[in-house]
Amino acid sequence: MLKLYYSPGACALASHIALEEAHADYELVRIDLSKGEQKTPEYLAVNPAGVTPALVSDDGVLTENLAIMWYAAATHPDAGLLPPDDAPFELARMLRVNGFLASALHPAIGKVLFARPPLEGEARAQALEPALAKYDIVEHHLLKGPWVLGERYTVADGYLSVFSRWLRLADLLDPDRFPKLNAHLTLVQSRPCVQKALHMEGLHPA
Amino acid sequence: MLKLYYSPGACALASHIALEEAHADYELVRIDLSKGEQKTPEYLAVNPAGVTPALVSDDGVLTENLAIMWYAAATHPDAGLLPPDDAPFELARMLRVNGFLASALHPAIGKVLFARPPLEGEARAQALEPALAKYDIVEHHLLKGPWVLGERYTVADGYLSVFSRWLRLADLLDPDRFPKLNAHLTLVQSRPCVQKALHMEGLHPA
Repeated sequence: MLKLYYSPGACALASHIALEEAHADYELVRIDLSKGEQKTPEYLAVNPAGVTPALVSDDGVLTENLAIMWYAAATHPDAGLLPPDDAPFELARMLRVNGFLASALHPAIGKVLFARPPLEGEARAQALEPALAKYDIVEHHLLKGPWVLGERYTVADGYLSVFSRWLRLADLLDPDRFPKLNAHLTLVQSRPCVQKALHMEGLHPA
Repeated sequence: MLKLYYSPGACALASHIALEEAHADYELVRIDLSKGEQKTPEYLAVNPAGVTPALVSDDGVLTENLAIMWYAAATHPDAGLLPPDDAPFELARMLRVNGFLASALHPAIGKVLFARPPLEGEARAQALEPALAKYDIVEHHLLKGPWVLGERYTVADGYLSVFSRWLRLADLLDPDRFPKLNAHLTLVQSRPCVQKALHMEGLHPA
């Protein structure tokens, strides 16, 4: 049985959505970031980096959304969550998007929305514009539409929706600046598996 | 013909090593970061994120080391640079390492080594310790030895070597703190393809 360590609404939601879309057999373990549960000895024994998500499987532990999502998809091929094996460029394109979200967009928007103490005034404005510029790159270059890779839903769609959701909840997903991201988020949130994952975390569609 | 945009010794070296190890047919295009060539309109048309690497193929453009490395390996299966298809957990473990290097370790050590203006004194010390803590996680948890995944060389080894190389060049790859990373870097640098990639970028083993 797979076990996913997550924090409600945090980026682990991407791995949670992938497990739901894969129709995987899994259970959830909630880690409360506000109580610092990601830094307890018990959790550090699971993920020494002290962040969510982590997935415990019979083979061992995985961390990093892009690895967990790929594993959920690859071990449940009937769900069709990856490009086909004979389309290596498409799979690389999916990894490109997931890599960009993980290494560029997530840290940039995380700094704006989750800094402690919270950023205010000029400091917030200075952090916000480079973060929105990362969303511009997704809007104009990485999101083909309607899904990230075009006609096929992949795990990259669930991942992107987490970050679009954060922006919409912060009233920053401007429909004039980000029309494709808005349409994409609405489309992803129309999927029953995504709604179920949100509900399980005590959340609503944004 | 593949075309790799790189900056000597920067993280694109990981993609360069992967292309060499794959015995791919490719050419190099040098981007001089010190002249800001990554922000010219010509290069932004290739990679709108304005960073290296970028790989131009007949199918289109890829960015992000982890995507380019995977593509080089998957399109040259005879080189054996990925875990076998019937070992999804091993491939996921490789993605986990590549994801951690891209999203956690690289930004942390980049802040220490490449900040402009350079960090000094207390500010440098404050940035250094969390960066070294990321290397600790690789040393103690992610690097199985002798290669990242154990007995098999994969593209994750070339990627990790770039960051170990930076640390050794900065006299920070302490052999007492990082014995496995030191042995790994030396092992990676003993490979003829790695030596060739370094030489093509005008570099020497660290």
